[in-house]
Amino acid sequence: MPALEFEVTARDGEARCGRLVTRRGVVRTPAFMPVGTAGTVKGLLPDEVRALGAEIVLANTYHLHVRPGEETVRRLGGLHAFCGWDGPILTDSGGYQVFSLAELRTLDDEGVTFRDHVDGTERRLTPARSIAIQQTLGADIMMALDDCTGRPDDRAEAERAMRRTLAWLEPNLAARSDPDAALFGIVQGGIFDDLREESLARTTALPFDGFALGGVAVGESREEIRRVVARFGPRLPAARPRYLMGIGLPEDLVEAVAAGFDMFDCVIPTRHGRNAQLFTRTGRINIRNAAYRDQREPIDPDCACPVCRKFSRGFLRHLYVAGEMLGPRLGTVHNLWFYLDLMRAMREAIAAGRFEAFRRELLAARAAGSGA
Amino acid sequence: MPALEFEVTARDGEARCGRLVTRRGVVRTPAFMPVGTAGTVKGLLPDEVRALGAEIVLANTYHLHVRPGEETVRRLGGLHAFCGWDGPILTDSGGYQVFSLAELRTLDDEGVTFRDHVDGTERRLTPARSIAIQQTLGADIMMALDDCTGRPDDRAEAERAMRRTLAWLEPNLAARSDPDAALFGIVQGGIFDDLREESLARTTALPFDGFALGGVAVGESREEIRRVVARFGPRLPAARPRYLMGIGLPEDLVEAVAAGFDMFDCVIPTRHGRNAQLFTRTGRINIRNAAYRDQREPIDPDCACPVCRKFSRGFLRHLYVAGEMLGPRLGTVHNLWFYLDLMRAMREAIAAGRFEAFRRELLAARAAGSGA
Repeated sequence: MPALEFEVTARDGEARCGRLVTRRGVVRTPAFMPVGTAGTVKGLLPDEVRALGAEIVLANTYHLHVRPGEETVRRLGGLHAFCGWDGPILTDSGGYQVFSLAELRTLDDEGVTFRDHVDGTERRLTPARSIAIQQTLGADIMMALDDCTGRPDDRAEAERAMRRTLAWLEPNLAARSDPDAALFGIVQGGIFDDLREESLARTTALPFDGFALGGVAVGESREEIRRVVARFGPRLPAARPRYLMGIGLPEDLVEAVAAGFDMFDCVIPTRHGRNAQLFTRTGRINIRNAAYRDQREPIDPDCACPVCRKFSRGFLRHLYVAGEMLGPRLGTVHNLWFYLDLMRAMREAIAAGRFEAFRRELLAARAAGSGA
Repeated sequence: MPALEFEVTARDGEARCGRLVTRRGVVRTPAFMPVGTAGTVKGLLPDEVRALGAEIVLANTYHLHVRPGEETVRRLGGLHAFCGWDGPILTDSGGYQVFSLAELRTLDDEGVTFRDHVDGTERRLTPARSIAIQQTLGADIMMALDDCTGRPDDRAEAERAMRRTLAWLEPNLAARSDPDAALFGIVQGGIFDDLREESLARTTALPFDGFALGGVAVGESREEIRRVVARFGPRLPAARPRYLMGIGLPEDLVEAVAAGFDMFDCVIPTRHGRNAQLFTRTGRINIRNAAYRDQREPIDPDCACPVCRKFSRGFLRHLYVAGEMLGPRLGTVHNLWFYLDLMRAMREAIAAGRFEAFRRELLAARAAGSGA
């Protein structure tokens, strides 16, 4: 049995529903993966994350490597026992955080040397090291280490990073020793179609269990993001899961599902939840706004989440204004529900053959609302 | 029917079990009231607080008056609807926070004028105003406004505050307009037995629904606290609930129950929980200590709380060290369980006529352990 099975169960245009079978259970796609950076979706218990509808979570290899360290996680029973989540976990390669958080980076053909952001310890990450850390953590789906330093709209930079990412593909694959842990390759190339084409062709020629589009939404324009997503989603192998990394707002997810993507992760729902930015069907509200002070209705009258079933806008606003940690917790619950409910709705619409109507309605509602 | 009924159901020495019947349900005593300062036990949902064993919570009038304001709470349906707790709520008078948090206090015979700690708004609190705020919030048990500025071991100061507290008793009673909200009087007098005697005699002569010992553990020595608690607990009217305000550590609670007290509140379990100080049967541990990094056992192997049933010391330590808000949340759950479970155990020991043995065992275990 392969490390990962994937079956497409319904199609509607390029959009599709599927079943991702991992060693720790089935994930229905399109799937949103809540981000549990350091082994916890901030403020929530694993059982709560599951009750909201998540079937897989993402954990950050960089954060766990730096603190508490993968050996500590292993001694505590592996990542699943450590954090109390018994479903599938996808780990990233650590590369993105090295480039966004660490200091004094030195990149070479074999890997990257850096000082971590916590106490400045000098560390080194190579494809072999990244895979070894992810395996020690016990990830069910691992990501190949890529070079994500290239500015997406600078051709020379994008090409340099794309070529190094290609050169690291084989070392990533060669490092895998756990045959039950899946490994995904990442397509780079910035906003340049020919670079993306070459990266896609050479990456998908290798025996990865799934393929991700990386280096998207890292500084390029919104139009460029949409164009790259729409163009390259359908070209990723149809028989394998397609993962759009780090995206995005609800309308971005709908567009990406329309382009045939199956898997998503993004800090937006959880980070916005902590910052009082709450999603509703017609847009996003800042619940700290004084207008909500005396409002007895829930965040979103159409929402069936545990927060909207019980608490008023006035109470939520009070929690954030008073600095009560229950505020960020409840905002995270509401936003994650919103995202996971959106995925459920998209899966239903695809299965029913009405995804295009669903997509148009959602985009129209959000365009007519109070803003993204 | 009175605002509050109280029935003693078992006695063992001075210790007693009882049933406190409020308009919002029954509270078994001895009872610990988790502190929900601004309408939330920090980090927890009301349903979680109840599941841990709480039957009544305390809310702070000062905090809710300053932010969001009692009128906002009223417009949002009253304190119970506002915060989602449908059981009994006791509110303090606001006096203690005026003296500990507010700025530019001016005390006079009728009340106290101050600037709040949030934005410096000038406000005034009198007995009539405190009761009005507590009634607007919708408290089930209200506390009379007292003067708690006296240093407990300075006789002139303690006497001045005690006399003003006595002078405010009638204005507190006269201000009550909600016949279904109970009102407790507070005995002051610092560490001076004759002052306490006079305060007790004159306070308990008035038709309060219960009586509290106030001004304890506000700077005096541990021995003085024990002495005052042991001496004046048994002298409070046996037919009414006896409330020891703001106390304390587990061993303090056991000693106070031994002196016949029925009700308690304290920030220790919740505040310590947020600060990584976790209670075990043999003492308190700082879970941030490096010794716990690789430990797979729970905080307390003898504990049946939701945290100890699922998570390791190593994971808990990681959460606090990494600054994850799940740490303070889980520490609060564990510590509150510890306190509420202690109350359950004391009620059982009293009902079974073995409270003195229980008390001795607990004090011995804590004395032998790693410290308070």
